Amino acid sequence: MPALEDAPRAPGRPRSVRVDEAIVSATLDLLAEGTTVDVLSIEAIASRAGVGKATIYRRWPGKEALLHDALATLKLPGPELAGESVRDDLIALLSQVGPTGHDPRFPKILPCILPHLSRSPEHYQAYQDIIEPRRNRVRQVLRRGVANGELRADLDIELTMAVLIGPILMQRVVRWHPDLDADKMPEQVVDLLMAGIAPH
Amino acid sequence: MPALEDAPRAPGRPRSVRVDEAIVSATLDLLAEGTTVDVLSIEAIASRAGVGKATIYRRWPGKEALLHDALATLKLPGPELAGESVRDDLIALLSQVGPTGHDPRFPKILPCILPHLSRSPEHYQAYQDIIEPRRNRVRQVLRRGVANGELRADLDIELTMAVLIGPILMQRVVRWHPDLDADKMPEQVVDLLMAGIAPH
Repeated sequence: MPALEDAPRAPGRPRSVRVDEAIVSATLDLLAEGTTVDVLSIEAIASRAGVGKATIYRRWPGKEALLHDALATLKLPGPELAGESVRDDLIALLSQVGPTGHDPRFPKILPCILPHLSRSPEHYQAYQDIIEPRRNRVRQVLRRGVANGELRADLDIELTMAVLIGPILMQRVVRWHPDLDADKMPEQVVDLLMAGIAPH
Repeated sequence: MPALEDAPRAPGRPRSVRVDEAIVSATLDLLAEGTTVDVLSIEAIASRAGVGKATIYRRWPGKEALLHDALATLKLPGPELAGESVRDDLIALLSQVGPTGHDPRFPKILPCILPHLSRSPEHYQAYQDIIEPRRNRVRQVLRRGVANGELRADLDIELTMAVLIGPILMQRVVRWHPDLDADKMPEQVVDLLMAGIAPH
């Protein structure tokens, strides 16, 4: 699939790009409405997009390939980072976990694809490939903090990423803790982790 | 549904209890095999349990009620806590997030029910009711730590719970970070959070 963002946004875009966009958007709409991957069908996507099934099959070999491309479009470019304080850059990156900076359908869609990810190593890897560039930006900020002394020299970078991202993702996806506000969590989680929970 | 754990385990149990157990177990088996809630049917459950659909409908008004009771059985009693160190008690409780101390089907089942939870306030509340007793044990250990000085006096208890549980749950459910080992995470996450990531 050609990258949609490379296409001009004006009405003059080639019709084939507009058709691609409509098919991808129909796929995401159906997932966001609660259709699970099991139930999602090329027929339903074609109907929602206003195209024939053959039009979809000319572009994608099947549901898996279309789903992969559709999910890849959910990850918009990340925020510009000030690059001054590691704390502030982490908050900026974590504020993108969930709706801000993503397609607004993302938090509705993630639960719908989880069963799918957990059942197949190929789907798991495809999703890892999609999220890895975003995750890598967090990794680089943590490494910068270790290098410049803002973070502990012996920090476990991968573990720290999991502890930063996991709670915010769980809150975005299923509002795991009824009393927490996902919008406030990036700053709260970073500050809690910076300070630690034991007295110093 | 009568609590299954109240029934004697010997072959002398009433047949009705054994039928209840078979129906609940069939429901959990189907979910663990990747059946989503959308696709799960009373017909499939009856077939797997070796009973008629009418037998299920005499016991539960429908799929939602059966699902709620089936999920409630996944939460086994938590571990005994030593009650000496807050760190050790937290690790013991967090080691129960996932398979140990749960029905081994739990990590396979959770992704299958997430889309379902995220679509309905009633289902969300039902699941909160199921997990709240377990979550409350973590809350009490944290409060003890604040009271006895093992933890910071100004600790945000709800936030800390989210930060402790979220990463481990994400790892159990979808192995979110390919390089982390979920079995080691309870101790790793507690120690990271106790120390904080900034130098002191």
